Amino acid sequence: MRTPQNGQRGPVDHERRDQIIAAAIEHFGHYGYKKTTIADLADAIGLSKAYIYKFFDSKRAIGEAICALQHDRMREDVQVIVDDGKAASDRMRRVFLALARSTLLLFSHERRLHDIVYSAVEEEWPSSKFFHEALRAMVERLIHEGRDGGEFERKTPVDETSSAIMLVLQSIYHPLLLEQHMDTLEGDAAVLANLVLRSLAP
Amino acid sequence: MRTPQNGQRGPVDHERRDQIIAAAIEHFGHYGYKKTTIADLADAIGLSKAYIYKFFDSKRAIGEAICALQHDRMREDVQVIVDDGKAASDRMRRVFLALARSTLLLFSHERRLHDIVYSAVEEEWPSSKFFHEALRAMVERLIHEGRDGGEFERKTPVDETSSAIMLVLQSIYHPLLLEQHMDTLEGDAAVLANLVLRSLAP
Repeated sequence: MRTPQNGQRGPVDHERRDQIIAAAIEHFGHYGYKKTTIADLADAIGLSKAYIYKFFDSKRAIGEAICALQHDRMREDVQVIVDDGKAASDRMRRVFLALARSTLLLFSHERRLHDIVYSAVEEEWPSSKFFHEALRAMVERLIHEGRDGGEFERKTPVDETSSAIMLVLQSIYHPLLLEQHMDTLEGDAAVLANLVLRSLAP
Repeated sequence: MRTPQNGQRGPVDHERRDQIIAAAIEHFGHYGYKKTTIADLADAIGLSKAYIYKFFDSKRAIGEAICALQHDRMREDVQVIVDDGKAASDRMRRVFLALARSTLLLFSHERRLHDIVYSAVEEEWPSSKFFHEALRAMVERLIHEGRDGGEFERKTPVDETSSAIMLVLQSIYHPLLLEQHMDTLEGDAAVLANLVLRSLAP
């Protein structure tokens, strides 16, 4: 399932659409999202504005497509871990580390993509909500499987446990916090995973 | 001990200085910190610019004084809890709730103080680092007392436990996240305190 986005036009899998997104990531990464216009982008890619408008009805629609792409990748990374059938505690720990790594990857090369992130948060673009819900469903599945297998305690309501873990995960993948602890993010993820696993012990 | 601040002038306990800070909180709260100049502020308070410069060498110095005041209050609230000698687990839970409440209090009336917060985070004003360190020392004291009293497990290094708890606390008091979960902050704090206390169980 693909992340829902606003303002998208034309066939979703059109190759040109992907080219525009790739060029936009490059361009926003260098010049910033807020300062770029569709005209700047068209010039840089060598397409007409009208052609870009065939696929996206605004700059924001391109921004949303970039965000959704990143969220799709993060979701798929987590899904692979959750599906691999190893011990639930092992998978839970790897979810923490994977989220830290994919968050770092996004921002390590192109710091100016932060710009998009701020807009996404301020304007509540739909892909972050969709990602949050998908992640929560996977975390709940791990909790259930860990309880069924006797790895995790069963006294706390599952709903409370998963709410708490989602709040803790936020400090790893929330982009607004990232700039402040990029250098320590992987270590922070490990330390938080340990705390969560101690809290889950029967 | 007062929080260290840059750009402060004149006797720290001067009554006029406090009046300027109080008026600045009011003014920034209405018109925003970023858009206000020292001249606007002087007009609003009915003082000359020169008089304000006797106490603060820039608008930022006034902003830092406001931040430090808030951090001093939060630190004192937590200190009272940590000092009251009840069970360590009970005090730990109340620290979570107190931080949620004081964060909410700051922003419930005057949403535009967010402006100051963004500047404080972007420009790394010293009071938040000082607050973070003071809070960490208090959390460590609670961990030691809980371990000594047999309430908390002793296997995890204290340093790791306190790092993890500080990261969890961040999602309650970090002002950048606040706007996104103001309505649920007190409930979130309770759920996170429960998770942390389960992780501390022997």
